[in-house]
Amino acid sequence: MATPGIQSHPQTGRQARQAIRAGAWTGPTAGLAPGTVQANLAILPQEQAFDFLRFCVRNPKPCPVLDVTAPGSWQPSPRWAQDVDLRTDLPRYRVYQAGELVDEPTELGRWWRDDLVAFLLGCSFTFERALVAAGVPVRHLECGCNVPMYRTDRPCQPAGPFHGPLVVSMRPIPADLVARAVQVTSRFPAVHGGPVHIGEPQALGIRDLAQPDYGDPVAVHPGEVPVFWACGVTPQAVALASRVPFMITHAPGHMFVTDRLDEELAVG
Amino acid sequence: MATPGIQSHPQTGRQARQAIRAGAWTGPTAGLAPGTVQANLAILPQEQAFDFLRFCVRNPKPCPVLDVTAPGSWQPSPRWAQDVDLRTDLPRYRVYQAGELVDEPTELGRWWRDDLVAFLLGCSFTFERALVAAGVPVRHLECGCNVPMYRTDRPCQPAGPFHGPLVVSMRPIPADLVARAVQVTSRFPAVHGGPVHIGEPQALGIRDLAQPDYGDPVAVHPGEVPVFWACGVTPQAVALASRVPFMITHAPGHMFVTDRLDEELAVG
Repeated sequence: MATPGIQSHPQTGRQARQAIRAGAWTGPTAGLAPGTVQANLAILPQEQAFDFLRFCVRNPKPCPVLDVTAPGSWQPSPRWAQDVDLRTDLPRYRVYQAGELVDEPTELGRWWRDDLVAFLLGCSFTFERALVAAGVPVRHLECGCNVPMYRTDRPCQPAGPFHGPLVVSMRPIPADLVARAVQVTSRFPAVHGGPVHIGEPQALGIRDLAQPDYGDPVAVHPGEVPVFWACGVTPQAVALASRVPFMITHAPGHMFVTDRLDEELAVG
Repeated sequence: MATPGIQSHPQTGRQARQAIRAGAWTGPTAGLAPGTVQANLAILPQEQAFDFLRFCVRNPKPCPVLDVTAPGSWQPSPRWAQDVDLRTDLPRYRVYQAGELVDEPTELGRWWRDDLVAFLLGCSFTFERALVAAGVPVRHLECGCNVPMYRTDRPCQPAGPFHGPLVVSMRPIPADLVARAVQVTSRFPAVHGGPVHIGEPQALGIRDLAQPDYGDPVAVHPGEVPVFWACGVTPQAVALASRVPFMITHAPGHMFVTDRLDEELAVG
C-alpha cells in the first residue's frame, strides 16, 4: 500500500481506479498497473447500442468487445473489475454531440443518462507488451509518440447506420521478426489479434506512411517491413462519421484499467 | 456439378443451402459441405435480443457469436454466405413459446415476424474435425451418437433476464493426447476454443458421467481423461429457462451451413 499523502504509481488495477476516482491520477494510463488489461470505452444511447454492438460483432478484429453494460448501468461485468463506476474511474473522457466534440470532462456526472450503454473494447496495450516481451521492438514506444494510424480502402461490414473504412495501426518490424510478431499477437484475438496486412501499404489504399490519418508518423528503417493491425479507432471513427446524436469515449490514452492480467486474454 | 435428377451429397455450402431450401435435403447437416463452418441458430424478438447478445458477449466460450442480423432481416453478413434466407435454408427448426416447444417446421414462413433477430453461434463441428485431423479420437463420432453434455455448477455471467449454468460437452481423450487436444482446439476461439476443464468432473458439479443432461453417454476407457469444453447448448438452455415469450432455434444437428472454411476461423 502507498503511504497516505504520498502519490505513488498505482501498481494494481484497483489502486489505479481508486487514484483516478479520487482525482489523484489525471494523466494517461500507459504504465499504470503493469501487466493488466486496459480497455477502450465507448458509450452510446440505447437506441444506437444494439446496431453498434452488431457492428462490433461483424468486425471483431478492429472492434473486439470485452463487455457491454445494461442500459443506464455504469458497472461492467465483475469479470473485469469489482466496484467500478465508469462515470468516474477513467481519468478523462470526450463527449460528442452529432459528431462534434463538446466536452472533455474528468468525470461524467452531468452527462450521464439512464439510457446510456457502455462498451469496453480491447486495447493494443496488451499485445504491445507481448511484442516487447518477445523481443520485438515497437517503434512508437521507443520514440515516446503515438502509434501511426491510417484509414484504409477496406470497408467494414456495415450494421444498421454504422459503416466506414477499416482503420489500421502500423508498426515497422525487422524482417526477421515479422513471423514472431504474427505469432505473438495472434495469441490475443480479444485485442485485435494477428496483423491484417504485412507490407505493401499501397494495397491497403495507404499512399504515404509519413502522413498518418491519426497519431504520429514513425520511421521505417531499411530492413524493416510495415506491419498493419486492425485498430480500435475504427468503431469510434465509424460512430462519429455516422453522426450519432450522442456519444462518450475515453480521451485518447486515458483508458479503463481492469483487474485482469494480459495473459488471461491469450488463447494459446 | 451433380447430374440433374440424381441427389448427391452437397459438397459446398452453397449447394447444401440450395438443396435444403428446395426440400431435397431434410436431414442433419453433419457431413454436408465437408470443411466448411456450420453454425447454431437462435432467433429472438428484438425486445430480448440486446440482452441476449450482451449475455453472449459476457460468456464468449459457451456463446461465440458469429453474426447477428438486423431486426426483421433473414440475411446474415455476406462474410458467411451470399443470398441466404435463414427462414428456409436450414433443414429443420424448433419454435418455442414461453419456453415450451410448439413446432418443428422445415421452414419458418408462418412463424416469421418483422421484429425477429437471428443469431449465428459457433458450432463444435469445426473443432471436432480439427481434432480428428490431428489424430485425436472423438468418441461420440466413433460411436455415431451425440456428444454427452452436462450442466455444471458454474454460473454464467448474467445479462438482463438471462442467467444460468455453464453447460459443457465431454470428450474422453487418451492421456498422452490431452495436450494436443488443448493445442488444436485453442486455435478456434470462435467455436468454443480450448477446454474449460480437464479431468475431475466432480469439481464441475458433475456427479455421474454416465448420466449426461443432454446427448448420449459415452464410455471413458482406462488411460483416458474426460475433457470438458464450453457447449453451445448453454445460450439456448439459458434463454429457454428464462421463458422468453418466443424463440426459434435450429433443430438439433440441423445447422446453418456457411461458405467459410473451418481454417478461416483459426487464430494461429
